[in-house]
Amino acid sequence: MSTALEQSLFQELEQLVLIDPHTHINPLSAASKNLADIMGYHYYTELAHSAGMDKALIEEENLDPKEKVGRLVEGLGHLDNTIQVSWLLDICREFFGFTDERITTDNWEALYDAAQQKMNEDNWEQQVLEHSKLEKVFLTNDFDDPLEGFDTNLYIPCLRTDDLVFQYLKRAVRDRLNQATNTEVGDANTMRDALAKLFERFVSKGAKACAISLPPSFAPQRVDAGAATAIIKHVVKGKRLTTAEQAMLSSYVFWTLAELCSEHGLPFDLMIGVNRRVYEDGVFQGQDLFDKRVSLIQYKELFNAFPKVKFPISVLGSTSNQELVSYSWIFPNVITNGHWWYSNIPTFIEVDTRSRLEAVPRNKQVGYYSDMYKLEFALPKFRMYRRVLAKVLANDFVGSRGWKEEEALAFGKQILRGNVETIFMNS
Amino acid sequence: MSTALEQSLFQELEQLVLIDPHTHINPLSAASKNLADIMGYHYYTELAHSAGMDKALIEEENLDPKEKVGRLVEGLGHLDNTIQVSWLLDICREFFGFTDERITTDNWEALYDAAQQKMNEDNWEQQVLEHSKLEKVFLTNDFDDPLEGFDTNLYIPCLRTDDLVFQYLKRAVRDRLNQATNTEVGDANTMRDALAKLFERFVSKGAKACAISLPPSFAPQRVDAGAATAIIKHVVKGKRLTTAEQAMLSSYVFWTLAELCSEHGLPFDLMIGVNRRVYEDGVFQGQDLFDKRVSLIQYKELFNAFPKVKFPISVLGSTSNQELVSYSWIFPNVITNGHWWYSNIPTFIEVDTRSRLEAVPRNKQVGYYSDMYKLEFALPKFRMYRRVLAKVLANDFVGSRGWKEEEALAFGKQILRGNVETIFMNS
Amino acid sequence: MSTALEQSLFQELEQLVLIDPHTHINPLSAASKNLADIMGYHYYTELAHSAGMDKALIEEENLDPKEKVGRLVEGLGHLDNTIQVSWLLDICREFFGFTDERITTDNWEALYDAAQQKMNEDNWEQQVLEHSKLEKVFLTNDFDDPLEGFDTNLYIPCLRTDDLVFQYLKRAVRDRLNQATNTEVGDANTMRDALAKLFERFVSKGAKACAISLPPSFAPQRVDAGAATAIIKHVVKGKRLTTAEQAMLSSYVFWTLAELCSEHGLPFDLMIGVNRRVYEDGVFQGQDLFDKRVSLIQYKELFNAFPKVKFPISVLGSTSNQELVSYSWIFPNVITNGHWWYSNIPTFIEVDTRSRLEAVPRNKQVGYYSDMYKLEFALPKFRMYRRVLAKVLANDFVGSRGWKEEEALAFGKQILRGNVETIFMNS
Repeated sequence: MSTALEQSLFQELEQLVLIDPHTHINPLSAASKNLADIMGYHYYTELAHSAGMDKALIEEENLDPKEKVGRLVEGLGHLDNTIQVSWLLDICREFFGFTDERITTDNWEALYDAAQQKMNEDNWEQQVLEHSKLEKVFLTNDFDDPLEGFDTNLYIPCLRTDDLVFQYLKRAVRDRLNQATNTEVGDANTMRDALAKLFERFVSKGAKACAISLPPSFAPQRVDAGAATAIIKHVVKGKRLTTAEQAMLSSYVFWTLAELCSEHGLPFDLMIGVNRRVYEDGVFQGQDLFDKRVSLIQYKELFNAFPKVKFPISVLGSTSNQELVSYSWIFPNVITNGHWWYSNIPTFIEVDTRSRLEAVPRNKQVGYYSDMYKLEFALPKFRMYRRVLAKVLANDFVGSRGWKEEEALAFGKQILRGNVETIFMNS
Repeated sequence: MSTALEQSLFQELEQLVLIDPHTHINPLSAASKNLADIMGYHYYTELAHSAGMDKALIEEENLDPKEKVGRLVEGLGHLDNTIQVSWLLDICREFFGFTDERITTDNWEALYDAAQQKMNEDNWEQQVLEHSKLEKVFLTNDFDDPLEGFDTNLYIPCLRTDDLVFQYLKRAVRDRLNQATNTEVGDANTMRDALAKLFERFVSKGAKACAISLPPSFAPQRVDAGAATAIIKHVVKGKRLTTAEQAMLSSYVFWTLAELCSEHGLPFDLMIGVNRRVYEDGVFQGQDLFDKRVSLIQYKELFNAFPKVKFPISVLGSTSNQELVSYSWIFPNVITNGHWWYSNIPTFIEVDTRSRLEAVPRNKQVGYYSDMYKLEFALPKFRMYRRVLAKVLANDFVGSRGWKEEEALAFGKQILRGNVETIFMNS
Repeated sequence: MSTALEQSLFQELEQLVLIDPHTHINPLSAASKNLADIMGYHYYTELAHSAGMDKALIEEENLDPKEKVGRLVEGLGHLDNTIQVSWLLDICREFFGFTDERITTDNWEALYDAAQQKMNEDNWEQQVLEHSKLEKVFLTNDFDDPLEGFDTNLYIPCLRTDDLVFQYLKRAVRDRLNQATNTEVGDANTMRDALAKLFERFVSKGAKACAISLPPSFAPQRVDAGAATAIIKHVVKGKRLTTAEQAMLSSYVFWTLAELCSEHGLPFDLMIGVNRRVYEDGVFQGQDLFDKRVSLIQYKELFNAFPKVKFPISVLGSTSNQELVSYSWIFPNVITNGHWWYSNIPTFIEVDTRSRLEAVPRNKQVGYYSDMYKLEFALPKFRMYRRVLAKVLANDFVGSRGWKEEEALAFGKQILRGNVETIFMNS
């Protein structure tokens, strides 16, 4: 039902070569090896489980990949309405020559085999990158990732800091930090030294961002080094912390990361609002949800304290979108970033995109990132976004505001790619 | 302005015979007896009062039904924009042969009399059921309802538990429970025994659900039987409870109800978010509002503790819809249920429906219930929903996703009726 | 892309002569004197700063107006997507004969000079009022404003009370109140006397409303006069107050204002949800943001206590809109009022308008106010609103509900103007 103008804008946007500014790609195994790698994406396992499939069927140990796909296909009928299954169909059509309307118990084996044949080709990863028009792909690396064995100009390192901020009470995390930095962290200063070494290593390897996902309750504040030292000493001795002390420790580490972002000119991606392990018996990566009672006001002190740090911000709930729009319109260092997770469906992307396009300076919006684990997902996810973007540009800019089509297209290209370069690649 | 496709889908959906999964019908007096029964629906009295009509005019004791309608008609002019008045017009046109554009001080008496003539017909109730294509109608019964004198295959009992969870401090409620169950509740165990007897009676009468409406502040937790006993003993002795004790008592009763739902395989309808008596001088049933600062995270422990209980969930605020979508997509036991009260207007139904249809497994969505007090309202309310549903199916599925019309229609039928059967009727 | 019907309704609505029920116009200098007055509107300075322009460039002392415009034009390219810049273009086209598509470094000087020529004309203010079809303009006056030197039938006084409720701890505010009322405020009674004198003066000068903007945390309650006296005595002696005492003082003053509104029959405009100075280094008037975790339930006691006071309510966040719709549908004294600040963009206006038009009695909705500081902004802002209103009337009323065009138009006119008269001008 889309208009000719929408179609035209969409087709133009489809030609754009992309830099994907946030993914979970493993650069040593970027493309899928079989259809189970694709259908094992948590969206399909968690939706199949939610629709009634036993978790044990999905997560049986040593399950053969083909058997796993066969089982998941049994549950697909309940999910064929979801946008996530439309991504899957899009992948199968674009990459594996699939032509049926649905994946069913009758046709899945042929699909599996056809996909296998393609993925067995030597240059499969290269094929996917080219067909998807992906020029560069941002990673999300553990802080102790060696960052070796791959082309950091294609797969761009990004320092993920969740463990440091929220899991430092775990002995294993402390050991990993000490080892990765050859430092014996024992107080606020040595903590800062260790974190500084991580930044130096990541930046020397071409890292272009620091990133973290944050629970709805988090409200970072500057913490005095003396207070931080007292808490870190407790932790190192294995003592338990009060909830208030844990929050102070998280704040201290987080704040130090922001200081290091400022020193190194690295953007700090904040992904705000996720509660971990809400559904305790959920499938792998299918356990997290959110509490919409979160506000960007919790980051007021941070945004004021670090005027030089760019904060590309993702919010988990669409009800947080207007705050994000307003904070980006006021704070020079707040940038809107993509459509995250539970907000990454066309209904929410559309209203969120409309408001951002008409109220946030055009140079402060990163339109989309795929958040993918396997390369094949960039194509359908960006395509979904481009459809919505084309619709909004056609209706709200060419239609209501009288823009020329080429002006709208230039705006779309800036949102999709230009701003990724100016915001992330100039550091 | 709807397209031919929307029209076609709407007409097809209009043919569907319905099971209405949540109403407040009195099965001993299901249809209206006069137009005052219809115009006395709280939507009209509260809107008329809100627009300026004195409550005393509306609620005068022993007011003649015709006089009441005459008075309400005086206030209708301020309300003719509301979707609720469009339901009223729809009823008058469908059932009473009304052909004018508006109900006015000039034409209401003729309408009243025409309506009276129809309602006086012997089989009025049957006519309404048939013309509305209603096959079965869920009730909402007080826990001590005798459940007698009606066909429980047509009017399906449902155990309403608000009083038990939130009003047990009232002597009258305690007496009613003791009497209904022939039990002297005095501790946690006898409380459980009494509640179990209610379930047995309701289930034996064909009940298909347990239901409750919940305030935004409620956050149920498992309560130790010993602690519950101490509190119940206090209550029975007439002692006052602290706020914390009241919350524990509510939690204990609620949790026990969930256990009994699990034992009996009954779905537990949760209607989340209503504050009672916010407008103290409001008309009957026109006093309740809400606080949008509520989150489904408050039910985390419950959803994890009862994997076998289906929780069809209604939220009062549209800002809670995305949480509901996300929780239903993750938790196998969370089901989206209709469009409740202040969210039951096309603007909110549309955005809520779009997101549910594209992100929740199709077998976990109950599209709509009428919430009606009188049978005549099923027709216009379901019709309003069907229009929105047809629009979403036409635009988002046939249009954007390329589905065939019959596939979209099958999806719509599942949402409207199929899931009511699989979710409620198999227990 | 709008339909012929939308266009027709829009053109009809454009003919309507307006009363603007909320502005920040200075009646002694209502129209702009140069283009810097227009481009100095905080929307342009804050957006330019947000997009990267140094605050010092914008706010340099003694900056020549033309130089200021030249500097701001340098930053306009990053903002040309914003609806705010579309207002600017609309002004330049309507009032200054501008015909280019954008304001650029190449054409701005000619525009500046052309604008200057127009604004230098003797009757510029009159020209703007006429061309904008503005019949009356509400002001927002400081409580000690002399209200002299202007036609109070054209520029209607309105008592702004923020300072009294939230800044009374400041010596300067206390002195201003004492002086303006010739009263030595020292306890609850003299406070009431002083406030009563303000009301008498404002009402005698033709004031038609009392207004206040409120932070998200505010939850007014009735405060005992004795308790208020104790706190006021502390304040007057220069003692510091606890947070709780400050809240009680604010509540006491606020509650007394509501009592005086009741006595004088003045509507009390509540503008709910703004946090002041969130971005501490922001440009002038570009520092305020919000916390969406606010609920109208915080005003429950107020709405119940003052049934005779009309409360036209503006909410800062679109996530508060459904509460506003619902509270207006239930409380006779709650009225929806315009689209405020961060919600004043078409995306949010559209969804907010749709829900209000279909669920709030038609006599309880004030469609729009400009909130302008300079007269030239009424035209583009009201035009933006009228476009959305025409679209909603065309789609939802003529289209979906089958209204005649003239009925929809009459509804639109009531929303835009009729209700301003009945709600504000009858007092």
